[in-house]
Amino acid sequence: MGIEIERKYLVKKAEWRSHKEKLNQNVLALGIKYYQGYLPTSNETTVRIRIIGEHSYLTIKSKTTGHTRAEFEYPIPLEDGQQILENLCLRPIIEKVRYQVNYGGLIWEVDEFFGENQGLIIAEVELENETQNIDIPSWIEREVNDKKYFNSSLIKYPYNQWQDQG
Amino acid sequence: MGIEIERKYLVKKAEWRSHKEKLNQNVLALGIKYYQGYLPTSNETTVRIRIIGEHSYLTIKSKTTGHTRAEFEYPIPLEDGQQILENLCLRPIIEKVRYQVNYGGLIWEVDEFFGENQGLIIAEVELENETQNIDIPSWIEREVNDKKYFNSSLIKYPYNQWQDQG
Repeated sequence: MGIEIERKYLVKKAEWRSHKEKLNQNVLALGIKYYQGYLPTSNETTVRIRIIGEHSYLTIKSKTTGHTRAEFEYPIPLEDGQQILENLCLRPIIEKVRYQVNYGGLIWEVDEFFGENQGLIIAEVELENETQNIDIPSWIEREVNDKKYFNSSLIKYPYNQWQDQG
Repeated sequence: MGIEIERKYLVKKAEWRSHKEKLNQNVLALGIKYYQGYLPTSNETTVRIRIIGEHSYLTIKSKTTGHTRAEFEYPIPLEDGQQILENLCLRPIIEKVRYQVNYGGLIWEVDEFFGENQGLIIAEVELENETQNIDIPSWIEREVNDKKYFNSSLIKYPYNQWQDQG
């Protein structure tokens, strides 16, 4: 088991784009395509299937308390992952490209969403404890704690249906 | 992935007990204790954690069609299994002793339930196809197709709450 302590931020799109172009010139941040889906669960427990290239993972996460949740992740055969994603997961599937950026001694994961969540860009940073100090990059707009930004929420209420796309 | 084709039967308790005594004299059917729990899911998809002795398994099953459902099973570390069972699974946990009996060329799994399902004994037989012929042992009472006999149902509506314990 792992404990995931994570904070989540909205990204300033123009600033992020120009930062990404600089990164790309340095061949630093090549995005990786992620497909992920969720089994129909309740109680804020999530069961996620994720496909990254030729790899597939099954991940169980507990309810979040503060910024923390328990996480159990297992690699599974790609074919299983594809079948579970296709036949057992709720629709829509999450499609995103993830960029990894080193900043202030931490790894920031910036997710650009596609499909029904096209237009949403979220940055996440994983911490070692809840009170850890964080240097905020200039392309971060603001922290978001609303559960609607959870990937597992974006399949129920995707970004293209939001009234307030802030 | 596997496809699970399974039929489920109620067991005649007295006949089973006397059959089991004969088996035990031959050291054939020593029961094994199973602990299993379910994450809170919907749509008849189930996510099960099972602990058998020092081993733990994570199993995803699809909705049942006829006698068939898709099944994806992965061994996971025992410590993970115990933590998921304790912290993430719905209550009650299923506790049962499983006996394996060879009969008519098939392996019958007879589950004697404990805890809140004390008194229930169910036999299951796994088949290669839906129309396969089955020799029914004398200690079988009748086939049951009602979903209330699913282990995943027995945690929501355990046997000790049934009006009709048939």
